[in-house]
Amino acid sequence: MGVLEGMRVVESSAFVAVPSAGMTLAQMGADVIRIDMPGGGMDSGRWPVTRSGRSLFWAGMNKGKRSVSIDLSDPRGRELAAELICAPGPDAGCFITNLPARGEMSFASLRERRADVIMVSLKGTRDGAPAVDYSVNPALGFPTATGPEGSADPVSHVLPAFDLIAGQMITGALLAAERQRLCRGRGQLVELALKDVAAAVLGHCGIIGEVVVNGVDRPKYGNALYGGYGQDFVCGDGRRVMVIGLTVRQWRNLVKVTGSETPIAALAARLGVDLDGEGARFEARDAITAILRPWFAARSVADFAGAFDAAGVTWSVFRSFAEAVREDPDLSTDNPMFHMLDQPGIGRFPVPASPVTFGAGPRDRPTPAPGLGQHTEEVLAELLGLGSGQIGALMDSGVVAGPVPA
Amino acid sequence: MGVLEGMRVVESSAFVAVPSAGMTLAQMGADVIRIDMPGGGMDSGRWPVTRSGRSLFWAGMNKGKRSVSIDLSDPRGRELAAELICAPGPDAGCFITNLPARGEMSFASLRERRADVIMVSLKGTRDGAPAVDYSVNPALGFPTATGPEGSADPVSHVLPAFDLIAGQMITGALLAAERQRLCRGRGQLVELALKDVAAAVLGHCGIIGEVVVNGVDRPKYGNALYGGYGQDFVCGDGRRVMVIGLTVRQWRNLVKVTGSETPIAALAARLGVDLDGEGARFEARDAITAILRPWFAARSVADFAGAFDAAGVTWSVFRSFAEAVREDPDLSTDNPMFHMLDQPGIGRFPVPASPVTFGAGPRDRPTPAPGLGQHTEEVLAELLGLGSGQIGALMDSGVVAGPVPA
Repeated sequence: MGVLEGMRVVESSAFVAVPSAGMTLAQMGADVIRIDMPGGGMDSGRWPVTRSGRSLFWAGMNKGKRSVSIDLSDPRGRELAAELICAPGPDAGCFITNLPARGEMSFASLRERRADVIMVSLKGTRDGAPAVDYSVNPALGFPTATGPEGSADPVSHVLPAFDLIAGQMITGALLAAERQRLCRGRGQLVELALKDVAAAVLGHCGIIGEVVVNGVDRPKYGNALYGGYGQDFVCGDGRRVMVIGLTVRQWRNLVKVTGSETPIAALAARLGVDLDGEGARFEARDAITAILRPWFAARSVADFAGAFDAAGVTWSVFRSFAEAVREDPDLSTDNPMFHMLDQPGIGRFPVPASPVTFGAGPRDRPTPAPGLGQHTEEVLAELLGLGSGQIGALMDSGVVAGPVPA
Repeated sequence: MGVLEGMRVVESSAFVAVPSAGMTLAQMGADVIRIDMPGGGMDSGRWPVTRSGRSLFWAGMNKGKRSVSIDLSDPRGRELAAELICAPGPDAGCFITNLPARGEMSFASLRERRADVIMVSLKGTRDGAPAVDYSVNPALGFPTATGPEGSADPVSHVLPAFDLIAGQMITGALLAAERQRLCRGRGQLVELALKDVAAAVLGHCGIIGEVVVNGVDRPKYGNALYGGYGQDFVCGDGRRVMVIGLTVRQWRNLVKVTGSETPIAALAARLGVDLDGEGARFEARDAITAILRPWFAARSVADFAGAFDAAGVTWSVFRSFAEAVREDPDLSTDNPMFHMLDQPGIGRFPVPASPVTFGAGPRDRPTPAPGLGQHTEEVLAELLGLGSGQIGALMDSGVVAGPVPA
């Protein structure tokens, strides 16, 4: 009963971006049908995996989808996939992919079958060269600007950030194209490249301008917040916290709650700057940090956590993943986004629904990821009207496959 | 002439997420009207800035929008803003914000004015506590898992990744809600929290499952690709490269082009594993790296770049931001996404259009960010039908403001 109820999207994908796009659409109520090779595509066993080898990644990226196993290396398989993509219905005819769409699955061929088909295709680079988040990120400079001040070693991010940005962008682009189809009746091919997504981010954040206009090559600033005040501190109990003074209000709250008004005012007077200016705070960050460091070193997190929250300070403890799962109620069923879910073959753990709530209806609970080929029969019967004899023959010929036995 | 032509969205925002959502909509053709306080809101001077103090961040995040200056601390200002949000037209009545929407700008009040209004509201945490990318990221564990193997120091990412993911999610959520309005005629309040966006990512990537099901707290793996093979190498010319062997094809290409078949086969035999399995490669990564390291150390990037590209290896050089802008054609006007643009008050530099191309029309060129209040008169006249006398009176009273003199 999600906001996209009635919409149908076929997905043929691997890695993070397109699977996360499909899952986002599924969690908003679309019927998302993921097509994979019998036995699984490239990412069916992607890490993290359970001790028995089941992919937690697959389970995470495919929640709420239906799974159909079709051999896309066989023209008869591609023909079936094309029929699924182009199945009738005003809200169907949508295809998202980052795999080579050959022959029957090419946009030209799909459009012959259904004139208003929408296909969103993600490439690695605009030229079609292979690229993944791990290769795009070093190319564009982020690892070189990440890590301890003064270090020459690049640090790559662990979060597949560009993949996840691209995934959400695919969701938006599909909905934008589908909006145009609703209004004007026409479909289209929508294309983007992972590296272009990252390159655009570099521009949007002002970094290309910083290089070209200012002639500045941004160095590493450690964990300091760029352009304002924000810094990590080790506390008396050995825990580390991040505190933020990006806006004037955040900054004043931080100064007040740490009782640092006098030394901070003295610092401002000595430097002849107004520390209400965020750039001034960034430039004076080391002197500010020197004032605040003893305050944190003398206290445990428990000593100030309540006061910080009451004063509206923007801050956080640093946690490992396990500490976060153990300590942070936002990762538990205390958060209505999370539900305990039994993922077949894996077990029971907290699983997120969509982070977005739509006021017109209740938030859907998350539903498990399908087993590979779990819905092959159901989907072929429902969308293409195939009978059990026809489906049986396709299975016997290896063109499609049902569920993999557990 | 973008795919969203005709759609109108009003934005009241600060930071990264909502501004990037509005810019994405503008670059797809929507008429996006950003409302800021006269003199500028919280982020009008955000870093990076030019030497004369003009914000490259503002220029990057507001491309293609119109800017209206209204004093939202004044009820008359909020009344005007509400009228702009609720201006007639089937494709208008959309509002995106991450600021407190008080009084006349609250959803309840907007809905009285226009029954089918759509409002997308981003909070910090689900409870309404303040949170920014810099505080959400440490709380959920990513910095603790980032950086050199064995180090105890957390490393925060430099890219505002969760903000950018949330921004694209806002775009998709708005379009999903607007689709429901197109189909069923009703508007709604759409809500999300930055921290929930990040918490959901933790689940989608399988990390919560890894903690709860496997009992594993993922450590730092340096720049190694998690779950497959991918590693950085220092070459003979001192440059560093990242090479990827995530898929079987990527892996085989890498082994072949470096002529490492024999030692890799010997390693597989010695370990008794099939290195075509990506998990096996991850577990054997140090031994694989030991085989490949001398090969890279003995060569300059120029020695193998052509062969790597020809062999379809997924790889990249590590670059600083300035090196990337200088060396990478994907950041230049060789890439049709980029155009040289004159940003008033800043200068001329390469600026990205949308990374997405829609086949139904040509890709729009990027357009500059507006000056603060540049479109106040134009928008009040066009949307609300105010005459120059009325607008003059509003300006005299300080409720609205025109452009800031350069």
